[in-house]
Formats: sequence, structure tokens, C-alpha cells
Amino acid sequence: DFAELDLDRERRTGFPEVIYGESKTAEQISAIFRRMMEHSDRVLATRVSEGKAESIRSDVPEAEYHPIARTLSWHRNKPQYAPDEDYVAVVCAGTSDLPVAEEAAVTAEMLGCRVERIFDVGVAGIHRLFRRLELIRGAQAVVAVAGMEGALASVLAGLVERPVVAVPTSVGYGANFQGMAALLAMINACAPGIAVVNIDNGFGAGYYAALIQQNRKG
Amino acid sequence: DFAELDLDRERRTGFPEVIYGESKTAEQISAIFRRMMEHSDRVLATRVSEGKAESIRSDVPEAEYHPIARTLSWHRNKPQYAPDEDYVAVVCAGTSDLPVAEEAAVTAEMLGCRVERIFDVGVAGIHRLFRRLELIRGAQAVVAVAGMEGALASVLAGLVERPVVAVPTSVGYGANFQGMAALLAMINACAPGIAVVNIDNGFGAGYYAALIQQNRKG
Amino acid sequence: DFAELDLDRERRTGFPEVIYGESKTAEQISAIFRRMMEHSDRVLATRVSEGKAESIRSDVPEAEYHPIARTLSWHRNKPQYAPDEDYVAVVCAGTSDLPVAEEAAVTAEMLGCRVERIFDVGVAGIHRLFRRLELIRGAQAVVAVAGMEGALASVLAGLVERPVVAVPTSVGYGANFQGMAALLAMINACAPGIAVVNIDNGFGAGYYAALIQQNRKG
Amino acid sequence: DFAELDLDRERRTGFPEVIYGESKTAEQISAIFRRMMEHSDRVLATRVSEGKAESIRSDVPEAEYHPIARTLSWHRNKPQYAPDEDYVAVVCAGTSDLPVAEEAAVTAEMLGCRVERIFDVGVAGIHRLFRRLELIRGAQAVVAVAGMEGALASVLAGLVERPVVAVPTSVGYGANFQGMAALLAMINACAPGIAVVNIDNGFGAGYYAALIQQNRKG
Amino acid sequence: DFAELDLDRERRTGFPEVIYGESKTAEQISAIFRRMMEHSDRVLATRVSEGKAESIRSDVPEAEYHPIARTLSWHRNKPQYAPDEDYVAVVCAGTSDLPVAEEAAVTAEMLGCRVERIFDVGVAGIHRLFRRLELIRGAQAVVAVAGMEGALASVLAGLVERPVVAVPTSVGYGANFQGMAALLAMINACAPGIAVVNIDNGFGAGYYAALIQQNRKG
Amino acid sequence: DFAELDLDRERRTGFPEVIYGESKTAEQISAIFRRMMEHSDRVLATRVSEGKAESIRSDVPEAEYHPIARTLSWHRNKPQYAPDEDYVAVVCAGTSDLPVAEEAAVTAEMLGCRVERIFDVGVAGIHRLFRRLELIRGAQAVVAVAGMEGALASVLAGLVERPVVAVPTSVGYGANFQGMAALLAMINACAPGIAVVNIDNGFGAGYYAALIQQNRKG
Amino acid sequence: DFAELDLDRERRTGFPEVIYGESKTAEQISAIFRRMMEHSDRVLATRVSEGKAESIRSDVPEAEYHPIARTLSWHRNKPQYAPDEDYVAVVCAGTSDLPVAEEAAVTAEMLGCRVERIFDVGVAGIHRLFRRLELIRGAQAVVAVAGMEGALASVLAGLVERPVVAVPTSVGYGANFQGMAALLAMINACAPGIAVVNIDNGFGAGYYAALIQQNRKG
Amino acid sequence: DFAELDLDRERRTGFPEVIYGESKTAEQISAIFRRMMEHSDRVLATRVSEGKAESIRSDVPEAEYHPIARTLSWHRNKPQYAPDEDYVAVVCAGTSDLPVAEEAAVTAEMLGCRVERIFDVGVAGIHRLFRRLELIRGAQAVVAVAGMEGALASVLAGLVERPVVAVPTSVGYGANFQGMAALLAMINACAPGIAVVNIDNGFGAGYYAALIQQNRKG
Ligand SMILES: Nc1ncnc2c1ncn2[C@@H]1O[C@H](COP(=O)(O)O)[C@@H](O)[C@H]1O
Ligand SMILES: Nc1ncnc2c1ncn2[C@@H]1O[C@H](COP(=O)(O)O)[C@@H](O)[C@H]1O
Ligand SMILES: Nc1ncnc2c1ncn2[C@@H]1O[C@H](COP(=O)(O)O)[C@@H](O)[C@H]1O
Ligand SMILES: Nc1ncnc2c1ncn2[C@@H]1O[C@H](COP(=O)(O)O)[C@@H](O)[C@H]1O
Ligand SMILES: [Mg+2]
Ligand SMILES: [Mg+2]
Ligand SMILES: [Mg+2]
Ligand SMILES: [Mg+2]
Ligand SMILES: [Mg+2]
Ligand SMILES: [Mg+2]
Ligand SMILES: [Mg+2]
Ligand SMILES: [Mg+2]
Repeated sequence: DFAELDLDRERRTGFPEVIYGESKTAEQISAIFRRMMEHSDRVLATRVSEGKAESIRSDVPEAEYHPIARTLSWHRNKPQYAPDEDYVAVVCAGTSDLPVAEEAAVTAEMLGCRVERIFDVGVAGIHRLFRRLELIRGAQAVVAVAGMEGALASVLAGLVERPVVAVPTSVGYGANFQGMAALLAMINACAPGIAVVNIDNGFGAGYYAALIQQNRKG
Repeated sequence: DFAELDLDRERRTGFPEVIYGESKTAEQISAIFRRMMEHSDRVLATRVSEGKAESIRSDVPEAEYHPIARTLSWHRNKPQYAPDEDYVAVVCAGTSDLPVAEEAAVTAEMLGCRVERIFDVGVAGIHRLFRRLELIRGAQAVVAVAGMEGALASVLAGLVERPVVAVPTSVGYGANFQGMAALLAMINACAPGIAVVNIDNGFGAGYYAALIQQNRKG
Repeated sequence: DFAELDLDRERRTGFPEVIYGESKTAEQISAIFRRMMEHSDRVLATRVSEGKAESIRSDVPEAEYHPIARTLSWHRNKPQYAPDEDYVAVVCAGTSDLPVAEEAAVTAEMLGCRVERIFDVGVAGIHRLFRRLELIRGAQAVVAVAGMEGALASVLAGLVERPVVAVPTSVGYGANFQGMAALLAMINACAPGIAVVNIDNGFGAGYYAALIQQNRKG
Repeated sequence: DFAELDLDRERRTGFPEVIYGESKTAEQISAIFRRMMEHSDRVLATRVSEGKAESIRSDVPEAEYHPIARTLSWHRNKPQYAPDEDYVAVVCAGTSDLPVAEEAAVTAEMLGCRVERIFDVGVAGIHRLFRRLELIRGAQAVVAVAGMEGALASVLAGLVERPVVAVPTSVGYGANFQGMAALLAMINACAPGIAVVNIDNGFGAGYYAALIQQNRKG
Repeated sequence: DFAELDLDRERRTGFPEVIYGESKTAEQISAIFRRMMEHSDRVLATRVSEGKAESIRSDVPEAEYHPIARTLSWHRNKPQYAPDEDYVAVVCAGTSDLPVAEEAAVTAEMLGCRVERIFDVGVAGIHRLFRRLELIRGAQAVVAVAGMEGALASVLAGLVERPVVAVPTSVGYGANFQGMAALLAMINACAPGIAVVNIDNGFGAGYYAALIQQNRKG
Repeated sequence: DFAELDLDRERRTGFPEVIYGESKTAEQISAIFRRMMEHSDRVLATRVSEGKAESIRSDVPEAEYHPIARTLSWHRNKPQYAPDEDYVAVVCAGTSDLPVAEEAAVTAEMLGCRVERIFDVGVAGIHRLFRRLELIRGAQAVVAVAGMEGALASVLAGLVERPVVAVPTSVGYGANFQGMAALLAMINACAPGIAVVNIDNGFGAGYYAALIQQNRKG
Repeated sequence: DFAELDLDRERRTGFPEVIYGESKTAEQISAIFRRMMEHSDRVLATRVSEGKAESIRSDVPEAEYHPIARTLSWHRNKPQYAPDEDYVAVVCAGTSDLPVAEEAAVTAEMLGCRVERIFDVGVAGIHRLFRRLELIRGAQAVVAVAGMEGALASVLAGLVERPVVAVPTSVGYGANFQGMAALLAMINACAPGIAVVNIDNGFGAGYYAALIQQNRKG
Repeated sequence: DFAELDLDRERRTGFPEVIYGESKTAEQISAIFRRMMEHSDRVLATRVSEGKAESIRSDVPEAEYHPIARTLSWHRNKPQYAPDEDYVAVVCAGTSDLPVAEEAAVTAEMLGCRVERIFDVGVAGIHRLFRRLELIRGAQAVVAVAGMEGALASVLAGLVERPVVAVPTSVGYGANFQGMAALLAMINACAPGIAVVNIDNGFGAGYYAALIQQNRKG
């Protein structure tokens, strides 16, 4: 009883609580995970290191580990999607942004969304983005993940009709301030249609995109 | 020709360009407004002071001025809503946040949404918020406007199922840094389901909420 | 004699000096602790790691270690409280805030207060807070410990009559700036009745709450 | 009805709402003031400029204006104090800090406290502080108001037994950042027994000191 | 003799000193301008308000005023350019960036460069930029002027072969910090081939582009 | 295929992509390096630690490692320079700035420039700079690398005719903020003819200087 | 009696209190000035605007106004200096720094020092500084006043044997942050022999230089 | 030849260069130390860790290591002081400030000053300071070392006649920002007679105090 689980959250907000693994031990995560498997049809833990994951999976072998996203997830029944199912697009600028982008993608999937990944299409080589534009424009919501100067998010918002959820990453150095440069850029985007979550908060962005997408179905 | 109007934007993003009135003269706003009335069925100008508005309306009497929101707007045909029409909730903490909240509301209305206003329900007297909670929970998207420490947005995100678009305002003094305290609080909200726009950017929040709402219909 | 002990402080301010263990060696802490046991009826050391504590307790077995609070304490005679004794409420938002909350609680106890702990009741699930509200409202002073956006402190100040001592914690990431987001939020709280101590300064908050409580008795 | 008055606050927190005059017109303040006179035995408005005050007092002649504190106040029955009544000490460093110190003093008086003022005793001439130390040490709570480097608050906390409520002021220039230097100094005070309110928030400090003092009586 | 003119600078660095008009009176600017006309074949003053310009031109009618750039300039012999002459491209994002872009353009012209202006082509409507790309790519150096999130500079650096001189402008509000958001974005650009000058420093950028261009001829 | 290589970049911007080694494994760098050797006549990887370099060179023995610059480079045919060939000057203030200065030098060499190194000539002993001034003034572009207060860049810009590319380094402590003090100093340089790249971005500065130099030949 | 004059300060620190005129009315300054003329042989008031000075001098005609320094001063007997008298050198970078430099010079004179002024010798044209170096090196203490990047102070400290008192000024724009860039540069100077006072604090620097100089005589 | 030693510095500024050991290897420090022993009568290296010191002393056994100050020093002939010799006072607030205070003391001694140490006299127990005041007031220059809120420096400047060289230390946590809170406090000190060096720069302060003291003798 080291945590007062908010088991009521699914009823209140439509989604179960997600386990934030950062400062928890493997034992704590295992225990909470197991307990949530009894109350919900899907469980997600984020920020789980490879080491912890290994030890947790010896307790909870049903949990699936995604090493790039650093997530552990479990569905009672894996969702199946029709080919023309609505989807969330998760777009990222560089290979270093992958962990955050995957955290967003896995979270949105967990919450019932089909996800299309469009990775490594930053503005330093903008033709890469244009090549994938049709796929991005077809999504119900777009998660834009970028570090350094974060320009990808502004460019996307100017090109797509659907809401862009921007995630600054801490990729960069010097006057980047661990992602603050990208966050400020995204908050100041000159195109409308962007809203921003915290630096490296792939989880928050995937969750938010799923809320938007779910609206569609609702 | 002081501005290269992005007349193509409506085709590209689903919404016409909105005139940002801050650094434009009344003459410039009048001219752009008139020109956009020829290309679109709805025109909106934001950050229009009372003084400018008066002089613009002598040129463009069709435009309606909203003194709190500081907007000028025009619809070829005013939209009519059914009583059970989906809506966007615009919630604000204090009376000083009203201009930003109204800018959000007017923008969302302009983009075709029915809007419910729930104002002056900040956490200093949280019972005021609970009294209005049913109305807020019924919305498709919630705009949360707050200055000072911006706690309203976190509290809302913990209570509603739908996406919260948080707008920090520059209301406050001292270590508030013109709204930066509220922005940081909102970006760090402990509840998921929040994304944030720039300080005092009621326009951006109303626009974003409308994108989410429009999704519903789409 | 590596330190010029302020043995006179108890006479001057009503409380003996508290040993700040962070940058001291186990030997130094042991020596100071022993020396203070000769001059006072209670001794407290904070920021003592588990490793140091073990080695100190082999020298000073009378000292009690609290592993979550990371404190070492000693009373010549443990205080006893009547069931209707006044108390300080220590409230915290999440499990990661526990070390700071416990440091506050142990400090206040050390200085003679009965303490009630109300933990893990952050605003992401605000119903948890309301369930415990009567207990909180009955306190003489309320210590509110929260990281991330620190909204718990504002919400509490709007709900209770007694002074709230707010402690921002460094729990969070990204644009949290190691607790600065929470500190700014608390300093800008829209409700009156809050004053703020440094980030992670559970000691300072517990001490302050005890000063307020002691007033009651004085 | 431009404001949803929190008339319930006196019942909930023990004190009536205080009118924050900064962004309100004279007409708005007059109307709220009158309405609160019907529901409470004492009314306070802060941040009221001399110009507004004059026009409000032609509507509400019962209100008393304090030009340094920039407050308007009214009591149904002025409180009378015994000579040995407990008191709050309001201490300030320099003459430029007077408006903030007076705001604190008037607020505490309004909330029923006897107040002793000890002004212009900053650390540049610390003998001035020592001359008044007995009076300060006799108080139930000490409000310490200082700009520039804010050292007065630390020095006081090291010298008195009672809680110090520190108010940084925006007095200073250059790398003072409108009071941020003093705020940081006070939050980092090396002596325990200090908690801090926002820059220039005399109101918040006076209110907090009154909460502590009231405890005494409670 | 209020200023120790650096008349030697043309010999030392290849260009005469440029008069920074901001904090100088009209009389001071007139006097310096006149004196420099005797020593050099070209004179430039920047940050000259319309009011000052009028009064200076009554003294120095040969000087030409550029009201958008807020510059006063004079050439003994206006340069003539061949149609295939190398050029500097000055590109800006929005109409509010025009004063800074024009300051850059006028400065580069003053220092002997042919200049092509490509204005109002920000990334919110990126097709506007692609329409002008051939002209931009033909330049010897590209000045990129943008406020808000400053994404234009990164996008340009990814598309052109020549050095981009990025100028953040103070256009924006809220968490823009008077241009700091754009400056940080430009300093962190993910594409190489960018270097940055101070916020609103059109002069510095035009000067720098001219140094690069001059190299070509040298 | 962990990375979408921008092989088209050489055609588009005149230079091949450079591998940023910081967050890549030795295996990833080896693979990309090999692949680029097939498409280009020169390959450069930066931010390669000694450990990684050793392991990469067992795969790609043709690559040359520069331990101070921490770069791996390869030329199909090493360029030869005439004694009177144009050159880039790389100037640095102290010995701690060497890694950044060497990264700049190696990058510029890689992109085809002859480079002259003028190291350890900071303003604390300015006579050292004056001794080397003729060599610096003869360059086509000057890279100025300095930490602490970064004054070297301003001093150089006042003394040379050619563009100065300023690189702040993170050398310093205390209120240096990992190079931010130097960055701000360089952005605010009182002499024109400076543009700035990110803290420790030797790569970006060498690249930029090469673009300027290349112009000369073009 | 709006101010508790520290008349004892001359005895305690060797110098009388100096009147800080910024936030005082002309009447207040007159009254304090007169009162100090009775207790001391020299009186100084700083930050006195031209308007206030005029009105004060009608009350206190003995006071001398220095319009650039914005000081009012009075000596019972003007000091006379021998031609070989020790002196303080006050050096400044540009004409915009003059008010601060003059404030320093007047303050040092007031406190009994002979002062040599070496103005407008910033590093953009460093030969101007070298021309005056002998005079500077002959001083007992050097006040270095500079805005923008403040490089002058570092350069001086590397060239002179005596202590340099560095004063950053708020001259600059953009990422200068009202003098913070210069302050950081000076605090991080690579040469030893510098200490720094607040932005625009000419008074503090002149006072400090006089303390050093006075030492010489003592 | 990894370093261009400024052997001329002693002639130019009166003191030899001091070796900054932080980023140098033991071998580099040994080599420079030996070389300087040939050119000067005293050598000092700062920021030398215990590990490096041991290895250096096996090469240069003449060097004396001071483990708290982390310095290595050597005098050809140790200076002897008369009992009434002038002295520098090095004062510090807490035991955690000792390394910085000792660095200052050793540096001043190295440069020929007699030093008096007054340690652990911070303002939390201000009576400790008053007990030592006579000794402090007798010094030619006072070095004030303090972390946290740095109030000691202001208090000292108000009490002593001689120049105070203030050194903020990085001692503290939370909103201390590694010493920035103390630095800002010291720069904003309300008493004149203070100048400030960088955070933890004991070397710079000791050097500066020695320059002042040397003046006395000069
Ligand atoms: N209040 C506002 N805040 C932020 N952006 C706005 C606002 N009003 C309009 N805009 C945006 O400003 C752009 C037009 O800018 P401009 O070309 O300067 O008129 C449009 O793209 C709008 O999306
Ligand atoms: N000077 C002040 N500074 C900060 N808060 C204040 C001040 N005066 C009144 N308040 C608070 O402002 C609230 C009223 O705000 P409003 O509804 O805008 O009048 C009350 O809850 C007071 O607690
Ligand atoms: N040291 C460096 N600093 C900044 N950018 C670099 C550096 N080295 C390579 N790059 C850039 O990094 C990009 C490659 O990033 P990546 O796709 O992560 O390998 C290229 O566009 C280079 O221009
Ligand atoms: N602890 C210190 N902090 C700051 N500067 C120092 C320190 N020790 C030595 N220095 C300075 O560092 C310079 C030598 O730097 P370096 O060439 O890297 O050895 C000398 O000019 C000293 O003035
Ligand atoms: Mg869009
Ligand atoms: Mg929610
Ligand atoms: Mg309350
Ligand atoms: Mg105390
Ligand atoms: Mg490029
Ligand atoms: Mg130059
Ligand atoms: Mg020197
Ligand atoms: Mg003094």
C-alpha cells in the first residue's frame, strides 16, 4: 500500500491510470501492474528501464516490453483494426527522438488507436517530410516529436487540417537547455492548430491524441 | 499589398486565415477584412483595440465588434445550433482572465462551434467549479483559461474525460513573469489530458478546440 | 572543531540547531550529535543517507533512523499526546513526494507537535483529497507538499482556514526545472493563506508549522 | 454581475474575500464594496490608486483610504486593543518598501490584529535593527519586508523565536529582476523559521501573519 | 566632441563606422553624419525615428530616409548593378518582420551589394517559400529574418547551399520573451549552414552578408 | 535502416551529411560510415569517443581518428594546397577550448579548406593575440572559439576585415551557465562582423566558415 | 521624518550616507540634503533627474548639479590635488555608457579621490584603448564601464596591475537583457583582478574604487 | 607545448600566472609547475584534486598541498610577517563554504599577504559574527564567502570601512541555482563597499584582496 491507486479514474476520465515507472522499483511496478490487471482490460507502464523490465516480466510474463519506448503493456484482447480505420500519425524529426515518439505511439495504441509512424523526417531535409505528407494529412490527430529547434511542429501545423500535438524532446546541446528551446519554439508556433505537452512527454502526447481520436468515434 | 494573404489556407487547413490586428493599422485591417469577405464566408480579426474597431466599422459596418474579446467578426450566414448540439466549454478562473477566455470563445464560434462559457470558477473557491461540473463534462473539448498559478487546468484535467486545451494568462505579478508561472504549471500538470498554448493565446486555444470538435462531426 | 556549534540557538529561538547532514561525513555527524545530546533534550539530523546512518548508529545507538525521511533523531523523553491534542497536518500529492513529506513530519514531531499524515492525494484525482478534508481542516497548520505543477497547495489554501506552508518538490521532468515550476505556482497561488519554503525543504516546512502550532500553546 | 463573488469564503476560511483593485474600475470596486458591506462586518480593497479612491469615496464615504498602502477599508465597529494585546510586527528595510509594508499592516489590522510597525531598519545599518529588537521579539508573528538583496529576513529569522513571513519587494535595479533577487535570497535563507510570499504581496503576508496570530486566540 | 569617431575603421575593417541612432539626438546624428561625409564615400545611420529623420534632413538634405528600415543613408555615387550581378537574398517570415528585414537590406546595399527581397514567406504557409526558392538559392548569402518560433531559418538552411545569416525578431508575445524563443531556435537549428546575430539586429545581418558577398569579389 | 540517410544532401546543399556520433552506437556509426563511403568522396563523423572510435576503426580501418576533435574522417583523395591557397583561421582562447577548435578545424578541412590554427591567445594575455594578428587577418573567414566571457570574438571582430564565426564553449564555472555567458557576450558583440553558432558547436562553425570560403572559389 | 537617516555611518564606515534620489521627491531630497549638510562636510545625491535638480537647487543653491551623472553634490571645501597625486581611472566603452561612468567619477571625487576619465575606448576599436594605456596603468584603481558584451573589463584586467572594478551597463538590446549579458561576461572574466558591481551602479563602483584608493593613503 | 604560458604576466600585472588545474592532467600540471618554478619565485595551482596532487607531488616534492583549498603551492622563500603586519580577513558563513574560503586564503598568502581566517560566522547566528568583528574591522580588505542567500556579505559591508570582496558559493539546493541566488543577493547588496566575483571563485577573491592590500604597501 505504498500507493493510493486511482482505480476510479477509468470511470471518471475514460482511461485507467498509467503507471509512471521512473522512480518506482521493479517490485512496486510488478505489484501495481498485477493489481490493475484485475480491475481493467489494459495496463500500461512507462519509463521502465530494460533492467527493471526483465525482472518485472519474470513476475508478469503477460506484459509486453517495448525497448525503444521503454514501456510495459498488456491487453486482455489485442485490438484489431480495419484497413480504413481512423488513425493517429506519430511524426518525428530525427533518430534521437525515437524513444519519445515510440512512447507516444505505444500509449495511443494502448488507448485503442491505430497508429501510423512517420519517423526521421526533420526539416533539415524537408523533402523527406513532403514524401510522407499524404499519410500524415489522412490522420485524425498528428503527434509531432522534435528536439533541437523543434521546427517540424510548426511546419506540420501549416500543412495539415487536423490538430497537432507537439512534443519537444531534450535532444540537443548547448543553448538548447534540455529541450526548452524546442518547447518555446512550439509554444510560439506561427501557424495555429498546435498545442504542446512537456519535454519528452511522449506519453502525454499519445494520450492526448487518443482523446481526440476517441472523440471521432464517440 | 503590404501583406501576402494566405488565401489558400482554407483549402489547405480547413479554416481561413485569421487577421492578427496587434501591429496593423485600422486602414490595413479594413482592407484585408474587405478582401477576405470576398473569398470566404467568415472573417475574423483578433487583437483589435476599441479605437481601431470604431474606425474599421465605419468602413466595414457588417463587422461585429466584441469589446471584451477585442475581436471583429463577420459571418455570411450566422450558424444556428440545435439544443443538443455538441459544444466546446470555455472555462476561466477569474474576471481578469475574461478577455482571453472571450477571445477563445469567439474564435471557436467563428469556426462553427457552439460554445458554453463557465467563467470565474478558479480554485480559490473550488465549490464554484463543482457547481458547474456537469456542463463542463458534457463538452467535446474544454478550454481552460487561468493566470497566477494556473491550477484550474490541472484540476479540470483530473475531472473530465475530454481533451483540455490550457491557456495560461499574463494575469499576476511578481514572480509570475507575465504568465510564465501559469504556463510552466500547465505544462507540468500531473493529470494527463492537457495540452498547452501560448500565454494569452485565446485565439489559438479556441481554434484548437474547434479542430477537435470539428473532428467529431467530420 | 570543524564547526562552530550554535549551542545558544535554543535559548535565542526556542529550538536547538538541527544538523544538516548533506555534506558532512558520518564521523562529523556522530560527533556533533553526541555533543548536542549533552546540551539539549532532543537532537535531529536531516539528509542522512542510509549508508551514513548505519555507521553513525554504531556510534550513537540511541539515535533513531527514519529511512524515508532520511533523518536521525533522538528524544530524552518521547512526547505523549492526548487524543484531542492539536496537530499539524502534512499533506502530499504523490508517492514521489514522500521523502520530503516525511522530513516535514519528523521535524514537526521532533519539535513537539502531534502530526497527521495525509499522503498521495494530488489533484489528478481530487476526490481522494475531499475524502480526507475533515482531518486536514482540523489541523492548526497544514504542510502541503507537491511537485510537478504544485496545484495541491492552492487547492488546499482555498479550502482550509489555517495557514498552509507550501513545499515544492523537485519531482517532475522537462520544463519542471527541478521544482521551480511548482515553486512559482505556489508563490503565485490565487488563494491567500499560503507561504512557501525552498524546493524539497521538508525540514523548513515542518519547523515552520511547529512554530505556528507552538504559538497556540504558548 | 461582472464577478462571481465568493461570499461564502468567510464561512469557509474564516475571512471575507478581499477586493483586488488593480484591474478593476472605480465603479466596479464601489459596487463590490457596497455589496460586501451588506454581507460582512469588514471590507478591504487593495491596490486602489489615489484617483480611483477619490471617486469610490464619493460613492462609499464610509470607506477609509490609506494612501501609502493604497487600500480602502471599512469596519462596522473599529476594534479596540488592550495595552498588552498580542501583536504582529511589520518590519521593513527601507523607505521604498513602505507601500508593501503598509499593505501588510493594514491587512493584518483589518483581520483583527494589533500591529507594530518597525520601518527603515535594513542591514546596511544593522544597529537600527538591534535598537528595535525587543519590540520585534515580542510579536506573535513577524512580517519582514525587503527589496534589493532581502537580507533583513534572514537576519530576523536568526534573531527571533516566532515565524517570519518574508515579503520580497521589487525595489532595486539591474540584476535585481524586479524583486526576484530578494525572493531567491529569502527562499534560500540559512536560518529556519521563514516562509515567503510573492514579490510586493504585502496583502498576502499580512493575511498570513493574521492567520498565525488568530491561532493564538483560537 | 561627444564621440571619439573611429574614422580609422574603414581602413582597418574595410567598412566605415555606421551611426547607431537609438540613443543620439537629431543634432548629434546630423553632426556626425556631416563629419563622416567628409571622410568617406558612403554614410549610414540606423535606428533613426521619423521625427529625428525630418529634423536631420533639414540639416543634411542629401541623406535619404527609409521609413520602414528607419535608416538614413548617403552615397557619393549610387552603385549600378549588372543584371547578372551577384546578390544577397533577404527573406522574412511575416509583415511584422519588415523593419528588421529592411534594415538588413539597406545595410547590405549601403555596403555595395545588390539585394533581392523575398518577404512574408513564413512556414505557416510554406508554399509561399517554395514559390520563391529559385531566387533564394541563387544568392551568395541569405539573410533569414523571423520572429515567433523562427522556423524559417532552419527550413532555409536545409534548402540552400549558401550561408544563412539568421536574425531573430522580437515579434511575438507570451513565452516569446521578446525574441529569445526565435534566437534559441535559430542557435539550435538542426541543419548546418546557419549563424545567428542578435534579436532585431538587421544591421548586423546585412553587414555580415555583405562581408560574405564581398569575399566573392575580393 | 535505423536512419533515413539524407544522401541527397550533397546535391542539394553542396556538402554530404555529417554523422553526429553522440547518441549512436559504434555499430551504427560503422554502418552509416561504410554506406556513405559508397556515395560520397568524403565522410565525417563528429562526437565520437575514443572507445567507439577504436571499435569503429576495426570495421573501417580507412577512417582517421582525431582524438582531440573526437572526429572520424575519410577522404577518397586527400586534398593538396598551394602555399598561397586561401585559408580559414581557427582561433581559440585557452587550452580547454581545444576540442571545440579542433572540431571546427577538422570540419573545415574535410569540406575542402586549408586551415590555419592560432590557439591559446585569449584576452587575459592579449599580446599573444597581437603576435599572430597578421596570420589571422590574411584568412578568408575566422572561427573564434572561446569560453568564460568570450571576449576574444569581439576583440577579433574589431581587428579583422573578414567575417568572424563565433563559437562559445562550455568552459567556465559558476555564473557561466555552461557557455551561456559566452554565447550572450558574442551575440551582443559591440563590433559588427560576427555571427554566432551554438555552444561547443565546432562542427557548425567549421562548416559555416567553409561555406564562406567556398564562396570565394565558386 | 520619512527616513531614519544613518547619520552614524560616516563614523562607522568612514563615509557619510549617500542619498539615492530615484524614488524620492524633490522636497524629500532637499530636506535630507540640508540636514546632512549640518552633519557632514560633503553630501552627495545620485539618480536626480534634471527636473528634480532644478527644484532642489532653488532650495539648496549650494548644491552642484552634474547633468550627465545626474548627481547633486556639495563640499564644504573643495579638495585640491597635487599634480602627482594618486588617482582613480574611470574608463568606459561607448558614449551611451557616459552617465554611468560619470556617476562613478563624481562619486569617487566626492569621496576625496582625484579622477582621470578615459571615455569611448571600447574593444570595437581597440587601438583607442592602447593609446590611453599609460594613463590607465598609472591609476591606483580602475573602474571599467561597459554595456553590450562588456569585453572592455576583461581586456583591461589583462593589461593593468591594479584592481579593476567592473560596471556592466544596460546599454544594448535583444539578448542583452538590460545589462545581464555584460554582467555575466564580467563575472566570468578570464583574467584575474576584476570584481563586479550591479548593472548601471556607477555609484557603487566609484565608492569601491575610492575605498581602495583611500587604503593607499591610510 | 599544450599551453602557451603567459610568462610575461608577472612583469605586466605584478603577479605570475596561476595554474587552473580543473581540466588538466597530473602530467600537464607537473610540467607547467616545474617550468614556472624556473621563471618565478612562487607558483600556485588551484582546483587540484587529492588524486592528482599525490601524483604531482611524486614529480614535484617541493610543492605543498592544501587538501581543503585543493591547491598546490611553492615559495622559493616563505614570507615572514611582523605581528602588526597588515592583513586580509577571509570570513565565511558555514562549514560547507570552507573549500572556497581556504582557496581565497591560500591565494592571498601566495601573493604575499598575511591572512586572518574568521570561519563559520553566518547570519543564522549573527552573535558569532559580532564576537569577531574587531578582527575583521582591522583588515585592509575583507573577503566574504557565503552560499545559500549570501546575506553575510551585505551585513559585513554595513559594518566595516574597508572594501569587501564577496564570493558566492554553490552551497545550497532547490531555488539556489548552484549559487546564483547568493550571487544575485551580493550584486544587489544594499550597503556600498562590496564588489563580487564568480560563484566558488575563491582564487579570484583572494587575488583581488591581495591587489588591494598590495596597494597599501606600494
Ligand atoms: N490572437 C492571435 N494570436 C496568435 N496568432 C494569431 C492571432 N490572431 C491571428 N493569428 C494568426 O496570425 C496569422 C496572421 O498573421 P498576419 O499575417 O500578421 O496577419 C494567422 O495565421 C493567424 O493564424
Ligand atoms: N494585493 C493583493 N495581492 C494578491 N492578492 C490579492 C490582493 N488583494 C486581494 N487579493 C486576493 O484577490 C482575490 C480577489 O480577486 P478578485 O476576484 O479579482 O477581486 C481575493 O481572494 C484576495 O484574496
Ligand atoms: N557535432 C555536431 N553538432 C551539430 N550537428 C552535427 C554535428 N555533427 C553532425 N551534425 C549534424 O547532424 C546531422 C545528422 O544527424 P543524425 O541524422 O542524427 O546523424 C547532420 O545534418 C549534421 O549536419
Ligand atoms: N580557481 C580558479 N578560478 C578561476 N580562474 C583561475 C583559477 N585558477 C587559475 N585561474 C586563472 O586561470 C588562468 C590559467 O588558465 P590555464 O591557462 O587554463 O591554466 C590564469 O590566468 C589564472 O588567472
Ligand atoms: Mg494546421
Ligand atoms: Mg482528463
Ligand atoms: Mg486558506
Ligand atoms: Mg527564527
Ligand atoms: Mg544549408
Ligand atoms: Mg570586423
Ligand atoms: Mg589584472
Ligand atoms: Mg562598508
